[in-house]
Amino acid sequence: VPDARPSLGDIEAAARRLAGSAVRTPLLENHALSARVGRRVLIKAETLQRTGSFKFRGALNRISRIPQADRRHGVVAFSSGNHAQGVAAAAALLGLPATIVMPQDAPAIKRRKTEGFGARIVAYDRRKDDREAMAAAIVAETGATLVRPYDDPDIIAGQGTIGLEIAEQARALGADVGIVLVPCGGGGLIAGIASALTALVPGVRIYAVEPAGWDDTMRSLSAGTRLAADGSVATFCDALLAPMPGALTFSINKDLLSGGFAVSDDEVRNAMAYGFDTLKLVIEPGGAVALAALLAGRPLDKAGAVVVVLSGGNVDPTQYARCLETLD
Amino acid sequence: VPDARPSLGDIEAAARRLAGSAVRTPLLENHALSARVGRRVLIKAETLQRTGSFKFRGALNRISRIPQADRRHGVVAFSSGNHAQGVAAAAALLGLPATIVMPQDAPAIKRRKTEGFGARIVAYDRRKDDREAMAAAIVAETGATLVRPYDDPDIIAGQGTIGLEIAEQARALGADVGIVLVPCGGGGLIAGIASALTALVPGVRIYAVEPAGWDDTMRSLSAGTRLAADGSVATFCDALLAPMPGALTFSINKDLLSGGFAVSDDEVRNAMAYGFDTLKLVIEPGGAVALAALLAGRPLDKAGAVVVVLSGGNVDPTQYARCLETLD
Repeated sequence: VPDARPSLGDIEAAARRLAGSAVRTPLLENHALSARVGRRVLIKAETLQRTGSFKFRGALNRISRIPQADRRHGVVAFSSGNHAQGVAAAAALLGLPATIVMPQDAPAIKRRKTEGFGARIVAYDRRKDDREAMAAAIVAETGATLVRPYDDPDIIAGQGTIGLEIAEQARALGADVGIVLVPCGGGGLIAGIASALTALVPGVRIYAVEPAGWDDTMRSLSAGTRLAADGSVATFCDALLAPMPGALTFSINKDLLSGGFAVSDDEVRNAMAYGFDTLKLVIEPGGAVALAALLAGRPLDKAGAVVVVLSGGNVDPTQYARCLETLD
Repeated sequence: VPDARPSLGDIEAAARRLAGSAVRTPLLENHALSARVGRRVLIKAETLQRTGSFKFRGALNRISRIPQADRRHGVVAFSSGNHAQGVAAAAALLGLPATIVMPQDAPAIKRRKTEGFGARIVAYDRRKDDREAMAAAIVAETGATLVRPYDDPDIIAGQGTIGLEIAEQARALGADVGIVLVPCGGGGLIAGIASALTALVPGVRIYAVEPAGWDDTMRSLSAGTRLAADGSVATFCDALLAPMPGALTFSINKDLLSGGFAVSDDEVRNAMAYGFDTLKLVIEPGGAVALAALLAGRPLDKAGAVVVVLSGGNVDPTQYARCLETLD
């Protein structure tokens, strides 16, 4: 693997491509949360991004880089949902047709929204079908460009714009960032954020947070090499079910991350309910894992403000209502 | 009634008192909402304010003005909930004891949170008791300062800081504000916002939004004099059940507002569900009325960006879950 880490210049170029199209999401403070944790907490609410998750950033940056001659053939992506919406919305904005290969059992809200952006959906069976092969066949047939969910330098640079914003917004709030907690599936979000923040905030410690049983990045960081997820453990964090760390993302993350935490579904449910009750933010399961680690008291080994990234808010209403029952 | 309108200087002084204690809430953009409405929409998310509603601003400004010698006697307030939390939190921050006279049937979440700020709760029966008399008795007995929910110049100036922020944030976003929609109960929030914005944004048109049957400000504006709410209509907008416009607030609002809209509970439920599904923001019934008017297509008579104020997010989880059923 070549050195895949995007430079600050790459990420700043991505930020220029996204300006005016992506939302500069707020870095929020909540006094009750800071009081509970006993230190200053800053919340990067990427739930408020276009399409309801950070995925729009990487998708728009990647699709912006498709040569003019290839654009009419469109794009194809495979995704459990948030990447699908990000690609569909970015393609629609830039005028490219989009085909999304999506699991049959994806949350209904994610399928509905993806179709709402005008994308064509091709469904697959998680147990039987090879989604990558299906996407490759569509590429071969149509000449479309495959937009990978995380293992792509332009995707990583696009997600890295979140890191640029965190650095700028924390400075504006007079906060000294010590620790950053980031939800992690394939590792593109955290690789981008770490590429930006380690360049801008000397000494910052960045941690991947994953669902228990799907903590392949944490275990790979310990082992120093890519390990597959256990995958036998059920979790409702549907956005974070990557089978193993990406080759490119892990080549970045192994150098820049300080470690990882795994959280249980119960801890995630509590974090979602806290989001409703105290933060007044709608957070989906996969988007709430970093907050879950913070609320569950995972040990933080550096002073300074803690930044928690909320990566998405696309959750089915019935599932959400069930999480709120923990408040009764 | 003397001229009660706070000057821009009064509101700027309030902003200095609030700096570092109140949240400078974000002015958010959501592309899906702007596309649906067909014009640029800016969302003032006061749901993200300390205590989950705008009430903290007025309370902190008012309590900050209590003379040192009177502070040890504490404060007393009567409130259906959000003002209670605002007063309790502001008093706790400034070190004053607080007593809150609260209806027995207030949402459990609001009672629980108010107690969480260390306030003493005195319950009353909406059908039998006179809450103002009860509060007056506590004042007479203890020497506490009564913190009124809206009809007080310092409360109005405190809420006016939202108007200052809207003007500054809209300018930073390059938006030209034409119309502002504000939830209205007793009228303190909109009186403060209108006092700031009409001074800062020439030609802006500001509308009060109320629950149907509780549209006393709208009807009073038409009549040119204060009229009581019908009050016989049931509504779940518990934060907006003021029996008639305040004397001070109406003396301001009759000069500065362009009119009002009334919305049904069904329209409010749809707006809360839209907040969940698209905005990813938790909004309580009374906090969602301005968004409800926008989504329901009430006619807007001036070009430019529309600002929608979301005034609070303190909603019981079971009630919220019922609103989400409209999405199925």
